[in-house]
Amino acid sequence: VARLISLVEDASPELREVARLLAPRAGRARVLGLTGAPGVGKSTTTAALVTAYREKDARVGVLAVDPSSPFSGGALLGDRVRMQEHATDPGVFIRSMATRGHLGGLSAAVPQALRVLDAAGCDVVLVETVGVGQSEVEVAALADTTIVLLAPGMGDGIQAAKAGLLEVADVFVVNKADRDGADSTAREIRHMVSLGAHPPGSWRPPVVKTVASRGEGLVDLLAEVDRHAAWAAASGRGDERRRHRAAREVEAIALATLRSRMGALRGGGELAILAARVARGETDPYTAADGLLADL
Amino acid sequence: VARLISLVEDASPELREVARLLAPRAGRARVLGLTGAPGVGKSTTTAALVTAYREKDARVGVLAVDPSSPFSGGALLGDRVRMQEHATDPGVFIRSMATRGHLGGLSAAVPQALRVLDAAGCDVVLVETVGVGQSEVEVAALADTTIVLLAPGMGDGIQAAKAGLLEVADVFVVNKADRDGADSTAREIRHMVSLGAHPPGSWRPPVVKTVASRGEGLVDLLAEVDRHAAWAAASGRGDERRRHRAAREVEAIALATLRSRMGALRGGGELAILAARVARGETDPYTAADGLLADL
Repeated sequence: VARLISLVEDASPELREVARLLAPRAGRARVLGLTGAPGVGKSTTTAALVTAYREKDARVGVLAVDPSSPFSGGALLGDRVRMQEHATDPGVFIRSMATRGHLGGLSAAVPQALRVLDAAGCDVVLVETVGVGQSEVEVAALADTTIVLLAPGMGDGIQAAKAGLLEVADVFVVNKADRDGADSTAREIRHMVSLGAHPPGSWRPPVVKTVASRGEGLVDLLAEVDRHAAWAAASGRGDERRRHRAAREVEAIALATLRSRMGALRGGGELAILAARVARGETDPYTAADGLLADL
Repeated sequence: VARLISLVEDASPELREVARLLAPRAGRARVLGLTGAPGVGKSTTTAALVTAYREKDARVGVLAVDPSSPFSGGALLGDRVRMQEHATDPGVFIRSMATRGHLGGLSAAVPQALRVLDAAGCDVVLVETVGVGQSEVEVAALADTTIVLLAPGMGDGIQAAKAGLLEVADVFVVNKADRDGADSTAREIRHMVSLGAHPPGSWRPPVVKTVASRGEGLVDLLAEVDRHAAWAAASGRGDERRRHRAAREVEAIALATLRSRMGALRGGGELAILAARVARGETDPYTAADGLLADL
């Protein structure tokens, strides 16, 4: 499994064959997205969720999406120490994933890594991304159920709205709920949710309070996740979201292919020549893009 | 200028004509990227930089990149109140930019907005993005000089490394330097910089300490920005970076064009059919992407 995910990170040419073999074996796992600003306790909550699902005997995969750094030569695992209690459990697979440099970006790499964990027999896969940044939020939103974490006194609702987190949340968690301000954060989120449109039969994201470091509120959180899954299955929105996830993946792979063809045009010289003309103001980027497409 | 930037946000078809007219008029402005995690004081530092450049009689543009939210109907300006002192200054143009939904993403939208401000006569344009998230960091890194902000006790070096900020920084700023831990944060960053490769003639990012809310350290910061600009001009790396920025923009426009053609294939039905087959495990995403490309 680890080697297959490394192929995904490296966007290896072998992926094509791997994807063909995995396709009929995937589609069983429930995918939970978990996102939120730095410092809200994503890793702690992920670890607590793993514990909770392990108590139910589910096989659990964890995909922590982290940009890598050339300074470290890979994904840094510094704040994932809480995961180490699960590291020796054969029913848990944890992977910190670096996708910097992946031509298709997160939207191509993450679904492929999910498929690996799914086909490997995980019942639940947790995808943890930092909830700041366009691509990261979009990826978490592709899960079957997306959990958005907040913590008291971190800027709360306004920050969540700015990051686009409000509209992707299926379940809100106010973590560190033993701190001052937890109730007002929960109230603020409920208020912002109430401002949205809620046609009959639609899902209205609940707000759960947790202290993940002590496992508090996890039973409530799992119940809300199950309730969302039941709603998604009954309403057909679950299938719709899986098709949407597949569409984004197919599109990302197709665009990555086109992008590498563009880069390869005349040995990479074509784009460089056009870009230099744009930089000198001799042409505009639309005309340059037309030229690139004409040669494709 | 505001209307032109709205066209960029909306990815309007009129942009093509606008871009053609602006091309010969742009290329003068110096672009500064400013990025860092939420809470490090990006807006305050941007405001302080505007003040500093206005004292030198430079015309200044500010582009604050914020994902918008349907809850607010546009970019939220809550934390930009410090900018209001500049709002009535005719030598300053401030725009909070929402790009959610822009087909080409930040990498297509931001360079176009920059070109508008550049052609409008700005001497300096500040691009402020949140320093978490693949796209956001990449956009800040396209500036002529990229400033990475940190603050004491926010996770510091490890967080910066995880976000990929270390490798994009031309100048590091430890803001809120009156707080405990500022010296150790500065030391940690200097140490991490020293771990990188530094061939002769390369640029070694300096670390500046500031208290932006009181304007402290701004003189030092401007001096380091000028020193970097002089190095970039002398070494040719400045031109190289502008060509790289233009290449990313041309590529993003070409990909957005291809993406919209893919979406339009047989009225959008083609991608939907392929995605449904992938979701059911009947085919793999690579084969589906091949099908999409064959029809393009």
